[in-house]
Amino acid sequence: METKTLGELAQYVGGRVRGDANVKIHSAATLGRAGEGDISFLSNDKYEKQLLTTRASAVIVGSDTVATSVPLLVAEDPYYAFMQIMVLLHGHRKHKKLGISPKAIISDSAKIGADCHIHEFATIADGARVGNGCIIYPCTYVGENVQIGNDCILYPNVAIYEGCRVGNRVIINANAIIGEDGFGFATHNGVHHKIPQIGCVVIEDDVEIGAGCGIERGTLNDTIIGQGSKLGDLVAIGHGTKVGPHCLLVAQVGIAGSTSLGNHCIVGGQAGIVGHIIIGNNVAIGAQAGVINNVGDGKVVLGSPAIEANQAKRAYGLIQFLPEMRQSIRELQEQIERLASGGGPGQPQRPDEP
Amino acid sequence: METKTLGELAQYVGGRVRGDANVKIHSAATLGRAGEGDISFLSNDKYEKQLLTTRASAVIVGSDTVATSVPLLVAEDPYYAFMQIMVLLHGHRKHKKLGISPKAIISDSAKIGADCHIHEFATIADGARVGNGCIIYPCTYVGENVQIGNDCILYPNVAIYEGCRVGNRVIINANAIIGEDGFGFATHNGVHHKIPQIGCVVIEDDVEIGAGCGIERGTLNDTIIGQGSKLGDLVAIGHGTKVGPHCLLVAQVGIAGSTSLGNHCIVGGQAGIVGHIIIGNNVAIGAQAGVINNVGDGKVVLGSPAIEANQAKRAYGLIQFLPEMRQSIRELQEQIERLASGGGPGQPQRPDEP
Amino acid sequence: METKTLGELAQYVGGRVRGDANVKIHSAATLGRAGEGDISFLSNDKYEKQLLTTRASAVIVGSDTVATSVPLLVAEDPYYAFMQIMVLLHGHRKHKKLGISPKAIISDSAKIGADCHIHEFATIADGARVGNGCIIYPCTYVGENVQIGNDCILYPNVAIYEGCRVGNRVIINANAIIGEDGFGFATHNGVHHKIPQIGCVVIEDDVEIGAGCGIERGTLNDTIIGQGSKLGDLVAIGHGTKVGPHCLLVAQVGIAGSTSLGNHCIVGGQAGIVGHIIIGNNVAIGAQAGVINNVGDGKVVLGSPAIEANQAKRAYGLIQFLPEMRQSIRELQEQIERLASGGGPGQPQRPDEP
Repeated sequence: METKTLGELAQYVGGRVRGDANVKIHSAATLGRAGEGDISFLSNDKYEKQLLTTRASAVIVGSDTVATSVPLLVAEDPYYAFMQIMVLLHGHRKHKKLGISPKAIISDSAKIGADCHIHEFATIADGARVGNGCIIYPCTYVGENVQIGNDCILYPNVAIYEGCRVGNRVIINANAIIGEDGFGFATHNGVHHKIPQIGCVVIEDDVEIGAGCGIERGTLNDTIIGQGSKLGDLVAIGHGTKVGPHCLLVAQVGIAGSTSLGNHCIVGGQAGIVGHIIIGNNVAIGAQAGVINNVGDGKVVLGSPAIEANQAKRAYGLIQFLPEMRQSIRELQEQIERLASGGGPGQPQRPDEP
Repeated sequence: METKTLGELAQYVGGRVRGDANVKIHSAATLGRAGEGDISFLSNDKYEKQLLTTRASAVIVGSDTVATSVPLLVAEDPYYAFMQIMVLLHGHRKHKKLGISPKAIISDSAKIGADCHIHEFATIADGARVGNGCIIYPCTYVGENVQIGNDCILYPNVAIYEGCRVGNRVIINANAIIGEDGFGFATHNGVHHKIPQIGCVVIEDDVEIGAGCGIERGTLNDTIIGQGSKLGDLVAIGHGTKVGPHCLLVAQVGIAGSTSLGNHCIVGGQAGIVGHIIIGNNVAIGAQAGVINNVGDGKVVLGSPAIEANQAKRAYGLIQFLPEMRQSIRELQEQIERLASGGGPGQPQRPDEP
Repeated sequence: METKTLGELAQYVGGRVRGDANVKIHSAATLGRAGEGDISFLSNDKYEKQLLTTRASAVIVGSDTVATSVPLLVAEDPYYAFMQIMVLLHGHRKHKKLGISPKAIISDSAKIGADCHIHEFATIADGARVGNGCIIYPCTYVGENVQIGNDCILYPNVAIYEGCRVGNRVIINANAIIGEDGFGFATHNGVHHKIPQIGCVVIEDDVEIGAGCGIERGTLNDTIIGQGSKLGDLVAIGHGTKVGPHCLLVAQVGIAGSTSLGNHCIVGGQAGIVGHIIIGNNVAIGAQAGVINNVGDGKVVLGSPAIEANQAKRAYGLIQFLPEMRQSIRELQEQIERLASGGGPGQPQRPDEP
């Protein structure tokens, strides 16, 4: 951990200080937990009142109109400034420099680049190529002819099936599976016959794959995870699906096969997308949504079945009023019947009348 | 397997016998499959009629008003009595006492307690501490400076990232992942920048983690799984989320980051909970629910979006009637139009009239 | 890769050729990507117009009425023909013939059949039996007394808990977990007590289990995956549940405990099925459905809660019209009020009238 003044931090992130620029900062913490020497940040309006009680030495904000006596670092993009400061003060994970463990299995026909660190019980199979500066943790399996670029990190128990290609600076979290066969069967006379899956999985540069994800290889075309996209934990990607660059797929998302996502899409947790459809660029899909049709560029959709977000918020929020809507319809039907027979709608029913 | 008389079992669980207390019991089985020597139990009203046909030697029930000639063990909490008898007759899983395999990797700076059994291909990294009486199965990875209490069981292929803390008597099932980075990125000019995740995961005493779960470490605060809580398979817990003590999270539940659950919450399978909300104590959340707002103590919620359960059961159950509701509305509109123009609502439309 | 003429392929699959039967085929590709020497197939009507532009040397179709100049292989079941041709041209995955690695751990009391290939870092525990012709990849764990039939493939990091039984020609993809304890706890005075799970998991012949699946062992009865059933990735099966023969469970499906599925059921991605219910034969369950009641033979259900599909398509599709339905109800109420007080429904409201 480094120690910096608030002024130095502001300069580093291109922001400005309101209050004491000389306060010393050595780490980051949430508003509720921060103490002396901590910088905090306001990520979400619902925490704004914590600015009045926090014991942080400084807070990163996007606007200096907030009411607080705490020194502020005002940044145009406060979350980005927070990230920069986290990297400056804390850095990313350090990995042990153990070289290539004699207890790893490296095929004679595999090629390993310079400055790689490969832990015990990892397997690098025949013909696989690993670039420079890669870290491969225990019990990870890199299948035959797999290609891995430079500066990748593969955490424990990752399995990459044969022939898949991984770009540079890719992070694959523990227990993720890359390139298992697509779920492709031809059903004939009630028996499901396995179709060879001859596509592979291509993971482009700067992708991060969450723990326990499963990314199927394609039947014919490759399955692609585009540059800079990030997948949360336990995400399932179907065979031949293409996730464009710079997408965010939150935990437990599922995308069926042969679907295509454009760039900069955000898919909320547990959302599902059917196969063989096209999702445009900059699309946002709500958590638990069920997307069954193409979605155009820039759209925001919610719900299952997913519809345009503004409409969905109103529509799905009205489900709770269905009982009273149904009751209203029944009352209207009775009122109309009475009206038509000469009675008034406001009259109470008198079933016990002679 | 032990053999006991029904009377001995009743005494052991604090219940009483209706029928022959001398019948001998050596194991447990379902009503449908039980035979001589088996004790069964009535877990669910829908199986009550099986009491008339079961060949069990005895059945554990909560009330002796049931109609059957089978000897009964009547217990106040029959499911608890069933558990006690299962433990008495069958016991929990026995683990092989192999000591510390010479084919495990134990860092010189790791500390392993007494009476631990660590299988081949397990890795205990630098600075890790494992308490007494722990069982660690093959290919499990215990990262740097991880702390594990006493009497824990880690099944195969578990991965625990650095610095996480596990209490006593914790069970972590196969392929679960603890402490991978939270899904935290600052997006700037369309690029997602990884934020160092400096919190860890704290798993308190007596927790069980299901197979294939992913529990993210916190960005700043720790992610916490409270004492005695049990997670089913493939559950995803977001960064900095706090699950209180004695919660039950069924398979495939997903909870986003920075959310807090109180104690004794029950979350049904595949339910999702958004980030940054507060769920009180003793809350029950239905399967597949989507919880997007705070939920107060003792509430029961269902549906996506989740609403109070009684309301939800009626409301979501009415979705199937939407077509007829819409049709009714159209008919009402036509009737009103006719009424207003002097016609009666009961008159059939006669489009072919001159 | 083999090279065949289109005529030979047609004969092989029992189909017929429209166009040049002598065109040479050596591999398969999608309509959009195919080139000379590739055979493609029309899987989905939405790709039919690609027949006009594809550069494939031939296309497998189900009917010769399509408009195209490309040579056609017309087959009664074109997807099955496609599968047969994929197997003929490309074959299934070849596995390295390494015998039994000296770096695998095989218990002295385990029995391994002929012609098995067991990779480094695999563990075959005491009393386990592996049939002939099995392939077991690195870091896979076969627990005590597990029985595995002939010609099975276990990919890396699979964990099979003790006593489970696996049939012949079963494929278990990477990181799947078989036989972890069922999620069974007796809650007493607010504490959840673990119930020993004495059932196991039985996987019948010709099953394929997806990557990262979790299949719980039964509390008393076994959990069963029936012959020829195929599970996608990250599927969770509860304790004591029985999946009948020849079912297809798509990725991320969850089935709670003690439920029974008949034969030839298809369960869409992310669908959930509650415990203790009975699903008949030939049932189709839509993606993301939530099934809470028994479903009879041959039914198709959708939605959460799941209802009959035709009804569901109309009903769930109407959720988006709830705002206007509610508005219509309000207008009707106002109109009726005016009608009852002598006004007409078509008259605009004039709130500013004296």
